[in-house]
Amino acid sequence: GLVPPSTSGCGRSAEGEVSSKQKVITVDGLTLNGPLHDNKAGELFVDEAFQIIMDEVVKKGCNIKEKVCEWKDPEMLRDLLDLELGDSSEPHEKLLQLCRDVARFSVKTNHPRFFNQLFAGLDHHALVGRFLSDSLNTSQYTYEVGPVFVLMEEVVLTKLRAVIGWNSGDGIFCPGGSISTMYAMNLARYRAFPEVKVRGLWSLPRLALFTSQECHYSVKKSACFLGIGLENVQLSMSITGNLFFSLHLAPQSFGAFDPLDEIADVCQKYQALAWGGSVLLSKKHRHLMTGIDRADSVAWNPHKMMMAGLQCSAFLLKDTSNLLKLCHSANATYLFQQDKFYDISYDTGDKSIQCGRKVDCLKLWLMWKARGTRGMEERVDRAFAYTRYLMDEMKKREGFQLLLEVTQFVNICFWYIPPSLRGQQGQEGYEEKLSKCAEGFGWGGVGGWVHMCWTAEVQEQGSFFLNQDNLTMYFSFSPCQASQLAISNICG
Amino acid sequence: GLVPPSTSGCGRSAEGEVSSKQKVITVDGLTLNGPLHDNKAGELFVDEAFQIIMDEVVKKGCNIKEKVCEWKDPEMLRDLLDLELGDSSEPHEKLLQLCRDVARFSVKTNHPRFFNQLFAGLDHHALVGRFLSDSLNTSQYTYEVGPVFVLMEEVVLTKLRAVIGWNSGDGIFCPGGSISTMYAMNLARYRAFPEVKVRGLWSLPRLALFTSQECHYSVKKSACFLGIGLENVQLSMSITGNLFFSLHLAPQSFGAFDPLDEIADVCQKYQALAWGGSVLLSKKHRHLMTGIDRADSVAWNPHKMMMAGLQCSAFLLKDTSNLLKLCHSANATYLFQQDKFYDISYDTGDKSIQCGRKVDCLKLWLMWKARGTRGMEERVDRAFAYTRYLMDEMKKREGFQLLLEVTQFVNICFWYIPPSLRGQQGQEGYEEKLSKCAEGFGWGGVGGWVHMCWTAEVQEQGSFFLNQDNLTMYFSFSPCQASQLAISNICG
Repeated sequence: GLVPPSTSGCGRSAEGEVSSKQKVITVDGLTLNGPLHDNKAGELFVDEAFQIIMDEVVKKGCNIKEKVCEWKDPEMLRDLLDLELGDSSEPHEKLLQLCRDVARFSVKTNHPRFFNQLFAGLDHHALVGRFLSDSLNTSQYTYEVGPVFVLMEEVVLTKLRAVIGWNSGDGIFCPGGSISTMYAMNLARYRAFPEVKVRGLWSLPRLALFTSQECHYSVKKSACFLGIGLENVQLSMSITGNLFFSLHLAPQSFGAFDPLDEIADVCQKYQALAWGGSVLLSKKHRHLMTGIDRADSVAWNPHKMMMAGLQCSAFLLKDTSNLLKLCHSANATYLFQQDKFYDISYDTGDKSIQCGRKVDCLKLWLMWKARGTRGMEERVDRAFAYTRYLMDEMKKREGFQLLLEVTQFVNICFWYIPPSLRGQQGQEGYEEKLSKCAEGFGWGGVGGWVHMCWTAEVQEQGSFFLNQDNLTMYFSFSPCQASQLAISNICG
Repeated sequence: GLVPPSTSGCGRSAEGEVSSKQKVITVDGLTLNGPLHDNKAGELFVDEAFQIIMDEVVKKGCNIKEKVCEWKDPEMLRDLLDLELGDSSEPHEKLLQLCRDVARFSVKTNHPRFFNQLFAGLDHHALVGRFLSDSLNTSQYTYEVGPVFVLMEEVVLTKLRAVIGWNSGDGIFCPGGSISTMYAMNLARYRAFPEVKVRGLWSLPRLALFTSQECHYSVKKSACFLGIGLENVQLSMSITGNLFFSLHLAPQSFGAFDPLDEIADVCQKYQALAWGGSVLLSKKHRHLMTGIDRADSVAWNPHKMMMAGLQCSAFLLKDTSNLLKLCHSANATYLFQQDKFYDISYDTGDKSIQCGRKVDCLKLWLMWKARGTRGMEERVDRAFAYTRYLMDEMKKREGFQLLLEVTQFVNICFWYIPPSLRGQQGQEGYEEKLSKCAEGFGWGGVGGWVHMCWTAEVQEQGSFFLNQDNLTMYFSFSPCQASQLAISNICG
């Protein structure tokens, strides 16, 4: 009879032998009912590799006594790693060694001394959520393929909306804040000019997009990608031409919040505005975002301060008119049949600009279950407390010059003043010398892993990874490290 | 002294006690050098949850004797799962039970009887690559943050380009084939009209986009998103107006290949065209894509037939003029400083429309290492052999009507003819009755998990997950299941 082989590269016994009762089926020289895949060997590999991941990444990567990174120049690293892909398969032990090498030479972004825009450290429960998502390998498009995750995504989005202050609305997880910005921009123009979907931008008046000087660069990227063009991105609120919408991002470097309520007053007669940020979880600090509920949409990246891990980015909407679906749907019949036996409003995939869409809600959901809303709130409050503490310490200590004496968020912008420059402030050439001072405390010397020499203890204990930009060495000192808050205002 | 606390929620001892030598630091009522996070408990959770993932997903999900899915209606499933996010944290055992529940009620997309567009089964090495990527939690934007992955991505992209037949070029991993389509479209218009980046579409002549009747719906989604508009998507190659570019996708339902060389002849005087597909890995079958090397860009999704897991999507370019960077860069100084101590051409993040970008190359790389190019090739050849076999069987058996007697790829389109309709072909109302026959073999009755009754053995062994679309019940019977090949033609 026609015995269906186990077709997915799994489901076979380890032996994978053709049973004596079965007829051997051969097509094109391949035995179809022969062994496809050795599941037992595969499972053994997963088991052993998991131990390496636990030891080399989860444990060692979080150990303050270990290095943040074993730095190598690109040319040297290329020689050390065996990256080339050849014709033949590599043996089990070699593959495990490759995993060790990848871990060894990668930056430990979970390390307590790793300070960078995007990262806040490791949450073990979120990590399990990621492993479980990976193993189930679901696409978030229809209820029949992702029943648990369709329901879960809606619960998580509803919770995030509630934190903003909306008791209804819509939303979607998408691959990062920049793409959330694009969603916001596309929806704003569709709401103002629904004909854009069919007729394109040529049928519309020229549109302008308002943002702030310190906006995140995704606003510019989005304007280019969506066909709006950089010259139509206005860096002030002077209202001329065809006002279209405005996007505003909280400055990544300075961590300052815009006065949302004031902006809303300006924008409301045109449309509204949108923002986001984990600060909303804190009863103590959410006043920084007073007015957020007047936004039309919010881009919130729990992969940053909330520690869910990349990628976990929620795009949230106040809209209840099904704008997301109307704007993005293409009604592909091979996925979104209209004659299913269940309520097809659960087939949310057509709201997305993607087709296959990764499950990004589970890691956040599981972490939230493990912490509770109160635990998430404490994480944010702690970040603020650490920041205040560090700022106070910097004011007391020699060798630090704060750019701003007060910070609103968890970013601190400062200069490190090397001993040779101390007391020279105001003198000619001081600023220029200072701007090159990164080298003075290790930049370059240790391959970019800035050894912060501001306390002897720190120097002894290991390396920092510290972000440098052209203007400032900014340093966010908190368990939930500050980072970009993707905050978008839409004035449609 | 100022002892930096371990700031990332990890790196503390399990006890986390403030040592007697340290001064207790309190800010805003929070003890900053107190315990942040119990690493030992976190590691225990990862360990125990990993066993659940291994047992309930990796092993059981691949076991042909287990169910593909325990189907529940949305309302019932919502009651069964404890999805709501509350104020308090849940205890360890409850969290593990939640993981079991998620696994239990999710569709096992790795199951040998799961047949759907996107999925081809579980590759254990790719899964390890995903776990390792998750744990390292790197963003693929600069060499200093992702040294291993910047080099690895380039090696993998180079390999994929070599398979196409290009010995130079560019590329990027992006979140899915639909977004690859958007990249292709945006690059094509930028190459033809570089002023679009600054001035927007208003400064350009009206553009048209050519594709085929059976194109993937991402072409339409992209045209809307990029401001081009649906009415400018032309479903034929009649060349009128301002020819811009054409995108073509291999029809997902039928699995037919377009004559690339002929299309290239038409397009070449305007620009070129672009395609992709794992069939290129097979010496035996790659003739289906003769002409692929004449394309300008290729969207190739190794998360489908190659089994790398969602998301793994490579957008490949023949271009060597740095088009990807020129078109998408925004030169954010806080990420892409010009004064680094290493060659900043390794900071590839500004080629992307994203900011933070997930590492998607490692899972493909590790799987390729484990299989070798020859192993990948055999996987494709087997898929073809299974398809031929199934088609032959269907021709022999009663109750099946093939839409096409020959298939080019690994898709088979067929009607299942229920006993009551057999022999009635050509009679009035036959087509309409047939189109509703899904119910005849279980659609609806078992909650959408179509029990294919075409052999008694299959019925006994378990359920199928089978895709239904309005026209056909198509069924792809292969270890590397056929699915959409994202193939894009650009005629600029």
